[in-house]
Amino acid sequence: MTVDTKPRRRGRRGATAAPPSARDTNYRQLKNPFPAMKAFSDDEIANMHETAFRMLEELGMKVLLPEAREYFAKGGAKVDGEMVYIGRDMIEAALASAPKSIDCVAGARHRDFTLELGSLTFQPGAGAPHATDLVRGRRPGTATDYREMTRLTQHFDVFQMISPLTEPQDVATHERHYFTTEAQLTLTDKFPFLFSRGTPQVMDCFEMLRDFRGASDEQFLNTTYCYTIINTNSPRTLDVPMAQGLIDFAKFGQVSIVTPFTLMGAMAPITVAGAITLSHAECLAAITLTQLVNPGAPVCYGTFTSNVDMKSGAPAFGTPTHFQASLAAGQLARHLGLPWRSAAGSASNLNDVQAANENQMGLWGCLMAGATVIIHSAGWLEGGLTVSYEKLITDVEVLNMIAELCAGAKAGTDEIGFANALSEVDPSGHFFATSQTMERYNTEFYEPVVHDYANFGTWTERGAKDATTRATDVWQTILADGTGPQLDDARVGALNDFIEKRKAEGGAPPES
Amino acid sequence: MTVDTKPRRRGRRGATAAPPSARDTNYRQLKNPFPAMKAFSDDEIANMHETAFRMLEELGMKVLLPEAREYFAKGGAKVDGEMVYIGRDMIEAALASAPKSIDCVAGARHRDFTLELGSLTFQPGAGAPHATDLVRGRRPGTATDYREMTRLTQHFDVFQMISPLTEPQDVATHERHYFTTEAQLTLTDKFPFLFSRGTPQVMDCFEMLRDFRGASDEQFLNTTYCYTIINTNSPRTLDVPMAQGLIDFAKFGQVSIVTPFTLMGAMAPITVAGAITLSHAECLAAITLTQLVNPGAPVCYGTFTSNVDMKSGAPAFGTPTHFQASLAAGQLARHLGLPWRSAAGSASNLNDVQAANENQMGLWGCLMAGATVIIHSAGWLEGGLTVSYEKLITDVEVLNMIAELCAGAKAGTDEIGFANALSEVDPSGHFFATSQTMERYNTEFYEPVVHDYANFGTWTERGAKDATTRATDVWQTILADGTGPQLDDARVGALNDFIEKRKAEGGAPPES
Repeated sequence: MTVDTKPRRRGRRGATAAPPSARDTNYRQLKNPFPAMKAFSDDEIANMHETAFRMLEELGMKVLLPEAREYFAKGGAKVDGEMVYIGRDMIEAALASAPKSIDCVAGARHRDFTLELGSLTFQPGAGAPHATDLVRGRRPGTATDYREMTRLTQHFDVFQMISPLTEPQDVATHERHYFTTEAQLTLTDKFPFLFSRGTPQVMDCFEMLRDFRGASDEQFLNTTYCYTIINTNSPRTLDVPMAQGLIDFAKFGQVSIVTPFTLMGAMAPITVAGAITLSHAECLAAITLTQLVNPGAPVCYGTFTSNVDMKSGAPAFGTPTHFQASLAAGQLARHLGLPWRSAAGSASNLNDVQAANENQMGLWGCLMAGATVIIHSAGWLEGGLTVSYEKLITDVEVLNMIAELCAGAKAGTDEIGFANALSEVDPSGHFFATSQTMERYNTEFYEPVVHDYANFGTWTERGAKDATTRATDVWQTILADGTGPQLDDARVGALNDFIEKRKAEGGAPPES
Repeated sequence: MTVDTKPRRRGRRGATAAPPSARDTNYRQLKNPFPAMKAFSDDEIANMHETAFRMLEELGMKVLLPEAREYFAKGGAKVDGEMVYIGRDMIEAALASAPKSIDCVAGARHRDFTLELGSLTFQPGAGAPHATDLVRGRRPGTATDYREMTRLTQHFDVFQMISPLTEPQDVATHERHYFTTEAQLTLTDKFPFLFSRGTPQVMDCFEMLRDFRGASDEQFLNTTYCYTIINTNSPRTLDVPMAQGLIDFAKFGQVSIVTPFTLMGAMAPITVAGAITLSHAECLAAITLTQLVNPGAPVCYGTFTSNVDMKSGAPAFGTPTHFQASLAAGQLARHLGLPWRSAAGSASNLNDVQAANENQMGLWGCLMAGATVIIHSAGWLEGGLTVSYEKLITDVEVLNMIAELCAGAKAGTDEIGFANALSEVDPSGHFFATSQTMERYNTEFYEPVVHDYANFGTWTERGAKDATTRATDVWQTILADGTGPQLDDARVGALNDFIEKRKAEGGAPPES
């Protein structure tokens, strides 16, 4: 491995290999600086909220887990078979008890962050059955892929949360949760994700996490150490593992991020207003369940709503309707006051211009919607069927630039620079040597990960590599570097012992 | 030519070739729906404005054209050799007389538009010495390229203005202005661009345009039929053809779009605040000249400020500083109340993921800055040295989606759809056949130009073409269609006669 993650050039400054930039922006705790954009008027948003109430009260929600229906019934809902009819009062009580701010505790203190309206976090693309890269091609996700992608996620500060990028399909399903949890705990010091695939698996994971963090049972209950994603089955269905996940995570004080995944024109109405009203209703039902289980339990609002292509029925992402759906969901989240997640993503089949444009378009929708968590913000292809190593890198470039925008710029006397720049240079001169430039040349600008500014001749001499090809060099270089987070050997040993013991006991199959 | 600009698929609806979408959004007159973002506080912006005044008064502007210096002197400026020192009062008078709203008259009435704060127009990438496409490769721009790119610009409604995409280098420079003007007048019915390369060429072009539009001299003086771009030579220099262009366009009531092109760390201070203060000062000087020549003459504020890569000195685009520079310029434009232009663009050497991400990042900076005109919004590579046919197409996809966002979405009773959608579908059902879907399936969603939503298997069977490769099909199909705007044969004849006469007289060489 001889490549370098940062391109080196013979520059005007005469250096054969310029020193790396000394710029150091904190990407770990971001505040969203982008003004919120509205899709609809406040009255229209209020009508959507009212319609969601009406849906839950009159049309009801199908809840497949008996235990969840019991919680709803105890809370005052009318239950008829699998259908649950949820009154407005119950929902409003849940919205009142759900916390508006959630402190998330990672493996290392400098990686802790807060989920609340105004804060901003990114997750890479999650849950893909396949992985792809230019070296090894497209294949079902493996344990190796899972670990490599987790290490890549660790490498970039702009990912505050670990997501399950690809499914390690070569790990037996009754042991997979040991594998994924161990990988996150030992390869990263960031905030981890746990799947909700039934109570036995979740309890195994909670135990691993509690002990690895050195927490007591009580500390664990009172501290948010991990998150799960809860997808409703639109329209209006909450299945067994999802309902169980909401209950388990609420009981133990861990975060559920509720995300109806609705495609306009298929599992949701064809309009943004209709689809988001449906998503909102499903979200309210799920949030209500968490608060019935444990008032004050951390929970995030969320949506992932895009449209299908009406000619083929295929999902589309990064479209104008996807953008508007994020905006509308953001208005509803602000209406509730809850932290919330939205999603970017791409339908493209490779890391090409379509993939870049779709993902960035979706990102701007999320950013101008004020999303607290933006999932699938890097690497996601084929509408989530594949995560690409190269796309992960090229999307990080965009996320880093957004993080730089979060940091903002200054316009004090030194920056405007009448004395130290503007008056130092005569007409037709240059600013390479002004006092201001000399003070700042090594810190002023963001230094790219994979973008290349070489001119056409130089770029051609260097092999005329496109950004995707260069991205291969970047991820290979990162993976070739064996360094990881600081670990406590005793806790790693105890984690491995626990896993071996549980495997010997037969593991825990997923529920479905 | 057998390809189609719109991909056809065997869809869920059972059609072997689904009919084209009946959606029809007006892209020709856009209003910017995106909330304005600030880079700096209002106080900081006021300080930058004050510093620009101080620069023009104390440091002065180098003005190479004697006639321009005379205008400044007559207006009260202190002139010392080539240096002009411009007082605040002169500038404030110019800002008071410059129109806040400019009605632009195109070749066809449905293509007229207004330049003012809040309106939004796009221009493709302009002024590139080279052209490139996947079929013919990268080459110096030719007459054929110029005409083809002009036809592609005409094809897409989202380009309200024609720009000079590439330089037709095989047309002699003393006859090139006849060629470019004839092409714009006969291949498009949009608002044309004229270069400011000296009075003789400009007068030729005005005469061609006046007669082709059927305008009298007086009508021409009182109607805005065309625009030019005025670049200052940063720092603080106004060269001969640019100063002459400001004078000529102001005299004849045509629009100058003033655009200091400054690269932070090179021809401008390394900070956003310093670079934009310099750009602002140069802009104020140029705007002042137009109003000294003809108070009330239409003029646009503008900037194109990005940064260099400090290692190589190479220009970079779509960076966080480029984004912030647009925001700061937008704040200053609003401070003045003038319509203004900013720019997107890419430094990449081919139409790859970098090119897509840089251009879109730059676009969002312009959009959130409230730019009235966004130049280089499609097709621009290598920091403007090349315009790519394929990138033109793939960027149009992004611009079209932005235009769809300008149109907005509705959330009335029909759109929220309790009665006609939400209550029609049982849990786990689908919305393909609701009343709401049936009414809207052919109009609700934006239909892409080049994005492809086929799944991996289908896409692979079809040849696994990336977006750039598909874009070749798109531009070839458009160019294969020979239709153009409606033309008046008599005016075309007169135009050709004029050109032949002027060529026989020796044409008009450019000034430099």
